[in-house]
Amino acid sequence: MVAEAAARRSRITPEREAELYAAVLDLLREVGYDALTMDAVATRTRASKATLYRQWGGKAELVVKVLRHQKPHFDEVDTGSLRGDLHAMVLRDDDCHMEQNSALMRGLMVAVHANPDLLAAFKEWIVEPEMSGVDRVLQRAVDRGEMRADNPARAYIIHMLIGGFATRTLIDEQPPTQAYLISYIDAVVLPALVA
Amino acid sequence: MVAEAAARRSRITPEREAELYAAVLDLLREVGYDALTMDAVATRTRASKATLYRQWGGKAELVVKVLRHQKPHFDEVDTGSLRGDLHAMVLRDDDCHMEQNSALMRGLMVAVHANPDLLAAFKEWIVEPEMSGVDRVLQRAVDRGEMRADNPARAYIIHMLIGGFATRTLIDEQPPTQAYLISYIDAVVLPALVA
Repeated sequence: MVAEAAARRSRITPEREAELYAAVLDLLREVGYDALTMDAVATRTRASKATLYRQWGGKAELVVKVLRHQKPHFDEVDTGSLRGDLHAMVLRDDDCHMEQNSALMRGLMVAVHANPDLLAAFKEWIVEPEMSGVDRVLQRAVDRGEMRADNPARAYIIHMLIGGFATRTLIDEQPPTQAYLISYIDAVVLPALVA
Repeated sequence: MVAEAAARRSRITPEREAELYAAVLDLLREVGYDALTMDAVATRTRASKATLYRQWGGKAELVVKVLRHQKPHFDEVDTGSLRGDLHAMVLRDDDCHMEQNSALMRGLMVAVHANPDLLAAFKEWIVEPEMSGVDRVLQRAVDRGEMRADNPARAYIIHMLIGGFATRTLIDEQPPTQAYLISYIDAVVLPALVA
């Protein structure tokens, strides 16, 4: 699978790939996942549908690659404290990107349930890498003696983070910002993790 | 407004109202909020569209009344402890209803952003009553000395609860259940509130 994907991907340059992903992301933010068609992607990116299907297999796989591509990895975050690491995660995205991402995330939270391919891709390319990134942050906190290894909130770290992110607009009629997420982490996530 | 709404509502019996709400809820679970039409509601409930509009004003108002009608109030919950009260809230809904509600909630979380009427109705009839119910639960905990009045997690109680509820299916590929929510409350919500 990996070799096959690499072979497929090697047919376009990284620059062209980045340009295409950026165009798809714009389109996705404009129309949402459900209304996104491969025809519209082909028009917007000036690519043939045959190329799109050959390179990415389908809409779900393409969208997940796009999301994955624009999202920085957790790996490099190591500030020396749990609070510092969690804050650094939040500060990766500026407020403008966060607002766009929260709208996109809400659309995807609905779309994945009607699209098993998208759910599988979402889990493989986004949830699982994020989880393993966050797990390393938490493991370092355990190793430093900041939290207990068997703290039950550890299993819910992603629920807490995505939940706080996704519910902000619904409940408060304003998009999530860095200031909100830092306050939420300090009030909810950290106390639960170090309890 | 209240007198006007009461006058409008008095034209049908409470039994007919309950029957109609149940039919709309079934329809809503089948097609989701966006695809729901007043034509389909009229057909399913054997009511005229004129009656529907006269009684409820519009789709957003009707849907919110339906949701509100099927959801028990928080008021009666007073078990003598914060943990008991939070568990009692979760145990109001059985697992079957919870799965249906979580699918509905995800659809609404997206729909409210494209529908200002629905967002306003959702806030007035669901978020605010739930918040004031939860506030009474938390105030009793403060009065009993179980939590500090100025605990910062208090402002995020609804984010924690709806977030935990809405993210379960996305992250774990299984619907929220009573057992999951009780575990989430014990691991996340309580430790943050009493920190």
